[in-house]
Amino acid sequence: MSYTALQVDPTVLAEGVNLMWVLVVSFLIFFMHAGFAMLEAGQVRSKNVANQLTKNLLTWSVGVTVFFLIGSGISSLVGGSGFSPAFGAGAANDYVGWLFGAVFAMTAATIVSGAVAGRAKLRAYITYTFLLAAVIYPVVTGITWAGAYISFGGEAFHDFAGGMIVHGMGGIAGLTAAYVLGPRMGRYNEDGSANVIPGHSLTFAVLGTLILAFGWYGFNVGTAATVFVVEDGSLALGAFATVGRVAMTTTIAMACGAMGAGLVAWLKTGKVDTLYVANGLLAGLVGITAIPDTTTWWGAIIVGGLAGGQLPVVFSFIENRMKIDDVCAVFPVHGSAGVLGTLLFPFVATSGTVGSVINAFIAQLIGVAAIAGWTIVATGVVWYALKAAGQARVTPEHEQEGLDVSEHGVETYPEFGGGESVVADGGKVSPSMRTDGGSQDD
Amino acid sequence: MSYTALQVDPTVLAEGVNLMWVLVVSFLIFFMHAGFAMLEAGQVRSKNVANQLTKNLLTWSVGVTVFFLIGSGISSLVGGSGFSPAFGAGAANDYVGWLFGAVFAMTAATIVSGAVAGRAKLRAYITYTFLLAAVIYPVVTGITWAGAYISFGGEAFHDFAGGMIVHGMGGIAGLTAAYVLGPRMGRYNEDGSANVIPGHSLTFAVLGTLILAFGWYGFNVGTAATVFVVEDGSLALGAFATVGRVAMTTTIAMACGAMGAGLVAWLKTGKVDTLYVANGLLAGLVGITAIPDTTTWWGAIIVGGLAGGQLPVVFSFIENRMKIDDVCAVFPVHGSAGVLGTLLFPFVATSGTVGSVINAFIAQLIGVAAIAGWTIVATGVVWYALKAAGQARVTPEHEQEGLDVSEHGVETYPEFGGGESVVADGGKVSPSMRTDGGSQDD
Amino acid sequence: MSYTALQVDPTVLAEGVNLMWVLVVSFLIFFMHAGFAMLEAGQVRSKNVANQLTKNLLTWSVGVTVFFLIGSGISSLVGGSGFSPAFGAGAANDYVGWLFGAVFAMTAATIVSGAVAGRAKLRAYITYTFLLAAVIYPVVTGITWAGAYISFGGEAFHDFAGGMIVHGMGGIAGLTAAYVLGPRMGRYNEDGSANVIPGHSLTFAVLGTLILAFGWYGFNVGTAATVFVVEDGSLALGAFATVGRVAMTTTIAMACGAMGAGLVAWLKTGKVDTLYVANGLLAGLVGITAIPDTTTWWGAIIVGGLAGGQLPVVFSFIENRMKIDDVCAVFPVHGSAGVLGTLLFPFVATSGTVGSVINAFIAQLIGVAAIAGWTIVATGVVWYALKAAGQARVTPEHEQEGLDVSEHGVETYPEFGGGESVVADGGKVSPSMRTDGGSQDD
Repeated sequence: MSYTALQVDPTVLAEGVNLMWVLVVSFLIFFMHAGFAMLEAGQVRSKNVANQLTKNLLTWSVGVTVFFLIGSGISSLVGGSGFSPAFGAGAANDYVGWLFGAVFAMTAATIVSGAVAGRAKLRAYITYTFLLAAVIYPVVTGITWAGAYISFGGEAFHDFAGGMIVHGMGGIAGLTAAYVLGPRMGRYNEDGSANVIPGHSLTFAVLGTLILAFGWYGFNVGTAATVFVVEDGSLALGAFATVGRVAMTTTIAMACGAMGAGLVAWLKTGKVDTLYVANGLLAGLVGITAIPDTTTWWGAIIVGGLAGGQLPVVFSFIENRMKIDDVCAVFPVHGSAGVLGTLLFPFVATSGTVGSVINAFIAQLIGVAAIAGWTIVATGVVWYALKAAGQARVTPEHEQEGLDVSEHGVETYPEFGGGESVVADGGKVSPSMRTDGGSQDD
Repeated sequence: MSYTALQVDPTVLAEGVNLMWVLVVSFLIFFMHAGFAMLEAGQVRSKNVANQLTKNLLTWSVGVTVFFLIGSGISSLVGGSGFSPAFGAGAANDYVGWLFGAVFAMTAATIVSGAVAGRAKLRAYITYTFLLAAVIYPVVTGITWAGAYISFGGEAFHDFAGGMIVHGMGGIAGLTAAYVLGPRMGRYNEDGSANVIPGHSLTFAVLGTLILAFGWYGFNVGTAATVFVVEDGSLALGAFATVGRVAMTTTIAMACGAMGAGLVAWLKTGKVDTLYVANGLLAGLVGITAIPDTTTWWGAIIVGGLAGGQLPVVFSFIENRMKIDDVCAVFPVHGSAGVLGTLLFPFVATSGTVGSVINAFIAQLIGVAAIAGWTIVATGVVWYALKAAGQARVTPEHEQEGLDVSEHGVETYPEFGGGESVVADGGKVSPSMRTDGGSQDD
Repeated sequence: MSYTALQVDPTVLAEGVNLMWVLVVSFLIFFMHAGFAMLEAGQVRSKNVANQLTKNLLTWSVGVTVFFLIGSGISSLVGGSGFSPAFGAGAANDYVGWLFGAVFAMTAATIVSGAVAGRAKLRAYITYTFLLAAVIYPVVTGITWAGAYISFGGEAFHDFAGGMIVHGMGGIAGLTAAYVLGPRMGRYNEDGSANVIPGHSLTFAVLGTLILAFGWYGFNVGTAATVFVVEDGSLALGAFATVGRVAMTTTIAMACGAMGAGLVAWLKTGKVDTLYVANGLLAGLVGITAIPDTTTWWGAIIVGGLAGGQLPVVFSFIENRMKIDDVCAVFPVHGSAGVLGTLLFPFVATSGTVGSVINAFIAQLIGVAAIAGWTIVATGVVWYALKAAGQARVTPEHEQEGLDVSEHGVETYPEFGGGESVVADGGKVSPSMRTDGGSQDD
């Protein structure tokens, strides 16, 4: 039996293999929601765990539907390219590209929930998530990935996998929302000094960290989304030609982020704080996310180490100087680490990547400023409007009681009385974790 | 250097790439056991957690071995196609197809464990699992996927990834077993009104939900199992030609399931119940599982929304009218949602998919009735026989004490006294979570 | 449009597809760190959970960086092949192969942490991890996978995915370290009899087990790392030609490991111990890891069943005869099970795999002895040196208080007082799970 050349069309081959890769990494990125849910649940008190979990479930559910119906269309409109699935006439497999975009969008959205934990009304959070998925994030991708409008002196704004576009944006949005909302009750004393409100489970927090790191390989390495391309009619490696660098820098920056944060915490207190090591690992990942394709191995050590090392310092600054109650440290982990890595781009790049270091740095600065400015303004407007309407924050009674009972009618751990929860409940066990919606109340 | 056409045989190419895809999605589907374990563990009381975990581990261990030795042979025998690994003379890579079938079979099996939680004897459950893996489930796949015997007026029964064959079957089996076993002690009052018995950890339940959703992408999208086919000697996309639709409808139905269940719960009680949102997300996934390849985007919204919305209603009906103690709500999540999606097939299908809507609907009805009838009869016979032999249910003393101590000799959380467990134990700490089998007892 | 044969170069095709597969399985293997973290956290007391979690995070972070800078170079040097990423001049995609090697190395490293739980100083553990990643493990791979120096009578030492090289090595290293460190306080009475110290959460332990099993598919099946090769200019299946056997034997051995351990535990105590079932599943996986590519289906049943069945017996021997406090049973799970499977190689192999059964067995014996000898000597030297310097073990006060407070300044569950922790703390709540590094102390 003999074959003619026509029998393996490189276009068909590239399409099938690329689809497979994009699907697998999209699944991995979706799984990051489990990581965020566990990381954030672990960092809040037991009386607010169900609220945090529900916000995570609804971020995905509401957000991805809104992004399908509205957000991806807005991004296409702003950027002049892309696919609007609900109203476009795309082929079935265009939906794969849509899903790939959607899991990035939902990552940006879910970051915010960690900052506003413990006092935001559920309806306020959902309203903001709706607007983030419909407009705020799509504008960011519209001017960058879809439109590529930002450059300076011939150097384009470089953000490979969303270090600024996704994580920086999410971290800055979270900080803005937390600022407008104000701190949780008891977080600050009358003299302005801060109290530590420990989360209820380090085990869930570390589990979430490792799930996130697993999914992050999809996030970064997966952004090398074209295994194959067809060039001049011939099969060739696409972004996969340098996928190994992405995998290596992601690995090294994550490792050095954990070490950097652990080291700084140790220098400050003499102890290796577990949560700093975990969040430092994530900060290292955030730091490299804009630039894993272009960074040298020593650059990955520097970027990861600095992204981790800045975490305890920036967290302390936010807490003690700015007096913002960023519950899950989303700004130091996603915001400042994302900005840092994005700005370091020209200084740690492999030779030949950057024409003019100064122009490239200015392009990065413009991109960071544009995304940060838009995010702060849009987020601030929404939360101030909610606040003005008296819809941003639960009542002090509900905050004291815990949002699980007041917003969801459940108790997360009915058999294990957390100190505070028991006091707040005064012994009255709520009908918690009910698997029915009304047998008691009807 | 030049190549001749013979150097890339499209058959070899398709085989390698298809094998890779099927392996990856089989791993994802296997991982759903972690999801089921966490989801169910979270929904039972702390005194029965280890029992639930052990059932999950043994469902997989006993079930997959039995399915290897017996079940896949029965399915082949009934359906007239397939591969019986233990006694067939297949090639090494036929085992990949076997594993792909096995992870679906074990999903059906593990669903049952959530319905019979808190009172079934371990040996009874294992006996049923053995028979499910050996005969009950293989007959279902034999008459459907393997044999394709069901059709009406030229329209074949359509169940793409097992919405009815796997989930509907499992949910119906669970309900049947729970009915025969009777409710847990204290679940109903003498006047027939129901008591809520809350699970011990919403955090584990939501973690399980998100692990399941991750694995479900393998389940649904993975069922588009042929990336490439060879047609007329040429490489072409196989089921992957429309894989994007499967990915999109799975995503949208899951999201709308969570929103649908949350909305109905909110309308009933004024609260957004966390567990309903989580189980609603799963019900949305179950709903679309029979039809992700043919459903329009608006159909996915409808199917997901209805599958989620029916959850609180059907759960209440099962609990308050039928008085069946379906502990982890496996019927509303897997059973009724699976039936719903299967029956909606012709009404939400893309144009050109269905010849006659009425005939297609009747074919779906026949398939649902056949699978439900067989499952109810076979499951009922087994559990009534176990009951008649006095082997179905633990003693009231053991049920009160908790199955962890009585069946497994362990305590799940020895340092965190659950209210009930402590009372039942009377202060006597059991030798729990021992890592040795006898140092104390020998 | 017509294509010439040159347009699909089989070398390009094989490179892209193989890269994709190796990346996906490397991510899966990385995820095993989440499994180890949960498995070990669940098996220690609540006062030592954060310590265990931190060790897991730092094993990966310190270890992978050291393996990048030093370890992979040592392995190349010893074995005469391979890639030293930091100082070599490799292509970007050589880093994919490095990452694949690194995730195996880190698996070996992390096994040790479970054996030394509850009393090792953090700095001692990190020092050992540094040396393991830099030298101890690289020498093992240097003489085996990289150098292939071990054979007897024409039969080469066979260890497909690291049953001995990774798991056996890790289990033996853990046992050695635990021996040198001595048991935890209260583990043995004055008469030499052992006390059971139950772990704090079976749920986390089982979650870890199932995450590990998921990742293990990457570990074993992924070691069939070449989907395609190019032979005589033509595309052909590489190790993927028999990948189905690897998937099947891995599945069956895992299942039989769980059943074997559960059965032996049941015979000893009349109860089906949950933790034995879970660890038995893992022992079954370890048992098959050296030989999944060559073992028959009945051989997988035997290897898995024996690997599971030996677990309770060997654990009891270690505990009661050798008086070694191997907290998480890492020797019976990884050590003896790995040795067992490696030695069974010629007796369960498919026909044609082995020339001389006796020679092959001797080659396996030599490999096991060489790896075990080197591991024991190197590990013993390091831990005895640390002990001599007074740096191996925390003070009795710190051990009593728990390592979370003394080494990390945190409390894992500040709202759920574990019995012992509360007693040890005397009511003084530590500044635990702080998200800042100094607001209270500054």
